[in-house]
Order: sequence, then structure tokens, then C-alpha cells
Amino acid sequence: MAPGHPLSSGRRPPLNKDTRLCISLAARPSNIGTRFHNYLYEELGLDYLYKAFTTTDIAAAIGGVRALGIRGCSVSMPFKFDVIALVDEVEPSARAIESVNTIVNDDGYLRASNTDYLAVQQLIDSHRLDPDDAVIIRGSGGMASAVATAFQASGFGSGTVLARNARAGRQLADRLGYAYAPEVGSLRAPILVNVTPIGMSGGPEECQQSFDDDVIAKAHNVFDVVALPSETPLIAAARAAGVEVITGAEVIALQAAEQFERYTGVRPSPEQIAAASAISRA
Amino acid sequence: MAPGHPLSSGRRPPLNKDTRLCISLAARPSNIGTRFHNYLYEELGLDYLYKAFTTTDIAAAIGGVRALGIRGCSVSMPFKFDVIALVDEVEPSARAIESVNTIVNDDGYLRASNTDYLAVQQLIDSHRLDPDDAVIIRGSGGMASAVATAFQASGFGSGTVLARNARAGRQLADRLGYAYAPEVGSLRAPILVNVTPIGMSGGPEECQQSFDDDVIAKAHNVFDVVALPSETPLIAAARAAGVEVITGAEVIALQAAEQFERYTGVRPSPEQIAAASAISRA
Repeated sequence: MAPGHPLSSGRRPPLNKDTRLCISLAARPSNIGTRFHNYLYEELGLDYLYKAFTTTDIAAAIGGVRALGIRGCSVSMPFKFDVIALVDEVEPSARAIESVNTIVNDDGYLRASNTDYLAVQQLIDSHRLDPDDAVIIRGSGGMASAVATAFQASGFGSGTVLARNARAGRQLADRLGYAYAPEVGSLRAPILVNVTPIGMSGGPEECQQSFDDDVIAKAHNVFDVVALPSETPLIAAARAAGVEVITGAEVIALQAAEQFERYTGVRPSPEQIAAASAISRA
Repeated sequence: MAPGHPLSSGRRPPLNKDTRLCISLAARPSNIGTRFHNYLYEELGLDYLYKAFTTTDIAAAIGGVRALGIRGCSVSMPFKFDVIALVDEVEPSARAIESVNTIVNDDGYLRASNTDYLAVQQLIDSHRLDPDDAVIIRGSGGMASAVATAFQASGFGSGTVLARNARAGRQLADRLGYAYAPEVGSLRAPILVNVTPIGMSGGPEECQQSFDDDVIAKAHNVFDVVALPSETPLIAAARAAGVEVITGAEVIALQAAEQFERYTGVRPSPEQIAAASAISRA
């Protein structure tokens, strides 16, 4: 059995009655979370177990999380909004975007947060982006809303939401007091953010660049939320132009570390997170 | 790590999103079921996981079993009666004694049964006990009710419930059309059954014999439901007197095999059950 195998012999105690269970709820569960968390439990010797679930009854599922004392629950599409009404407390990170991706259960008290949002805020901070800089955010979906809201909440007053979907784009822009644009046109800004699937491995726009070279040339920070690959055409072009980058891999690692810490009280090292990410996507 | 360790490398597939979860619900969870089932999953290469839980909200817990697609749920005190109202179907084994110890979830349809009751019926059958024989059943608790009801349902018309608790003993006897007696006195019968903690390891009556030698001498079958140890003073005395015995270990093994098969569709061999039992109580 491969090292890091979630059921391999390791430093995790034997499965027992006190082992804490964390789960995920998604319409289409993947193995990524299951591999990621179980790898780290093993690595860190934590008496936890993680398993993906789906449900057709989100209210009863969350009721079950509470009643069974399931320690943590990662929430994916299409439940991110619906769970808000089912928990006891919604932290500002989830309230800001009306979207939950993490629920922590303390003795039946359910606290919801959004670690994607928190990760973006932390990256804005750690990469020392300047709130006086204008930002162009491409995309209008759930994650675009999280990213744009994080920028706005971090004090970025001048933003443009760039989106093909005019209705969603305009709505997001209006909510944040940002501008809306359907095309990049002559728009230029020091901070460029992509929150569309452009450049995503296996997608129809895998080889496309979400901002053109001449737009990149005017920027000093390029942030691509696409994590697979983390070296998207946009990131590659930005690096080539000597522009600072923030990658989707950073978002994923940070949000996962944040989530892991909320469930277990233990913060894995960046190296451990990187190893877990690699194994979970292998 | 010991062979048979629930998280050791073995024939069970790596934990993944499709791994089926079985759980137990009890006020005071033990590790026995967790060890027993996980040992056999490993041994038989089944993509299952078993974990004990407790709850203070049985309705929400069973709702969670349904909504999360938890495959099986073993039910212990004090939930054996309360779950009846929460499932979709109650099999005769559980209906007969208004007590559930096993719930199987088929795509959200919950079917409840009582494998203790089924095990006792099967042992009455496989040991070819004669329904024309009179039976004395000592005890008046939940398991005594299951055992006595199984005898009555197997056609044993002449029975006596022997119990210190007059109210419970009389109630059970009345329900089955059996006699009630507070003391053994001059009572004798070919079949003697103990369903009290007398002879149980660690209990206050560990060294006591639930029927005296002279009562045993008149019997040809002695059945002790106490499983820890399976060689109780009663069983030892019966063996010494050349009387046929049925042990609590047989009940436990059979009910566990029955439960395991209901959850997984796989019937472990008697040897596998014995190995799992030994490991789960180690």
C-alpha cells in the first residue's frame, strides 16, 4: 500500500468509538477531500476520519450531523446557501457572500463559515495588495462573488466585474459598488483576477488566457483562482511579464488548511498541506 | 500493528467516497461493534466502515442515517423502542418484542429487525429443542422478553417466567400465556434458560449459578444468554451433569452474523465470526 494511503498503518490511532468523523456534502462527491483529510490525520496522528457523502435532504443531513456529533461538514454545490438556515451561527466570512463551505459542530452547536473567502482575504493580505489599486475581477459565479466581496471587504474601492453573463455580473457589481463590463476593451488595472474556468485543465478553454498580454503588461498583480493546473496560461504569461502572481493552488491550500484547523484544532504545515494536496489529486 | 487491526493494510479497498458507512447508536457506545465489523470488512475485502455513535436526539439521528445514506445502524439501549416510529418497515422479529437492534437502509427506505430474536429462534431450531417440552426462563428484562417471545413463537406452549421483579415478570408471562414464579422452588423443566446477569463476568453475581444443580439434573437443555464468559457457572454445571448447552457466545455470534449479512449481503463463516468476536473483545 502506498505511503499516505488513508487506511495504511500510520500514526493515526485505530478506528474506535471516539474517533471523530468529518464529512462532506455535495451533489457529486469526489475523492479529493476524503484523501486530503485522511492523509493528514494519518500524518499528524489525529483520531479523525473523513468521508464524502451526498444527500437529497439537506435539512435531515445537517440534522444528522448535529445529532450524531459529526465534528465537521464541508459543504459543496448545491447546498452552500441552503445550509445557512440550518446552522446556529453564520460567521461573517459566510454571511458576506451568503455561502457556506465549512460547518463546525461543537457539542451540537453548528457554526458556519466560508474558508474560500477567508483564504482570499488572507492572500490579499499576505501578498500585500494595495487597496488603493483598481482591480478587475473576471467572473460572476459563486466563487467570483466570494473573491470580489473579499476584495471589497479588504478596502478595495475601485473594482470592475468583467463577465459575459450581464445579469449576474451587473448584480454582483451593483452589490459591491463596483463597475460592470461585458468585455475588457480598453480597461486596464494594476490587479487582475480570474475567477472563470478559463485555463482550467480539461475544460473547453484550457489553452486560453483570461487576460491578454497587453492587459497583463499594465498590471502588477495577477491572481488566478483556477487551481488545476496552478500554472494556467494566465499565470505563465504573468510570470513571463515579470508580474507578481497569486495562484489557485495557494487559495486551495490555504482554505484547506483553514478548514482542517477548524475541524481538528491543528494547523498543518505548508509542506504537509502540499503533500496532502498532491496525494488527494493523484 | 496487529493483524486484523481495523485500519491496517488489508483486503479492504482504500477509504473513498463510495465506502459505505454502518454505525451504531447507543447511550454508552463501546468499541466491540466497531472492532467486530471493521475486522470482517478487512478480512472479507468489503468497502465498508463501521463506527459507534451516541446521540441525544434519536429522531434526528435516524433522519441523518436516512439522509446521509448510512447503510446500516445497530441500535442499543435506550433507543430500541423509540426507533420503531422512525423507520419505514418493522420486520416481525422486531415487532414481536417491540424492540429493534438492526436498521438497514436501502436508498432511504429503513427496515428494522431484531437479530437477537432471530438468533434465539435459529438456536432453538438448530439445537432441535422440542416445543412439547416445558421451559423455565429466568429474567424479565428486554432480552428476556426477546428470548421468551422467541420460545413462544417457536411453539413452546408451556413456559414459566422466573423473575425477582414480580411486575415485569408477571407482565411478560401474561403476554405470552406463560406462568410466572418469583422463585424456582419445586419447579423443574426439561429446558432451562437464563436471561439475567447471574454468572456475568465482573458482575456482583459472577460466581453464582442461575439454576441449582438439582434443577439442572432434571433438565436436558440449558441455555445461558450470558456471553461473558460463555462458560458461566450455569453452563459449567450443565456440562458437568451431561446436559446439552446453548451458550451466550452462540447467540452473539449468530446475531452478529445475521446483522453483518443484512448490512453487506455477505455471510461470514463461523470461523470468521469467531475470530472477529475474539478480536472485538480483546
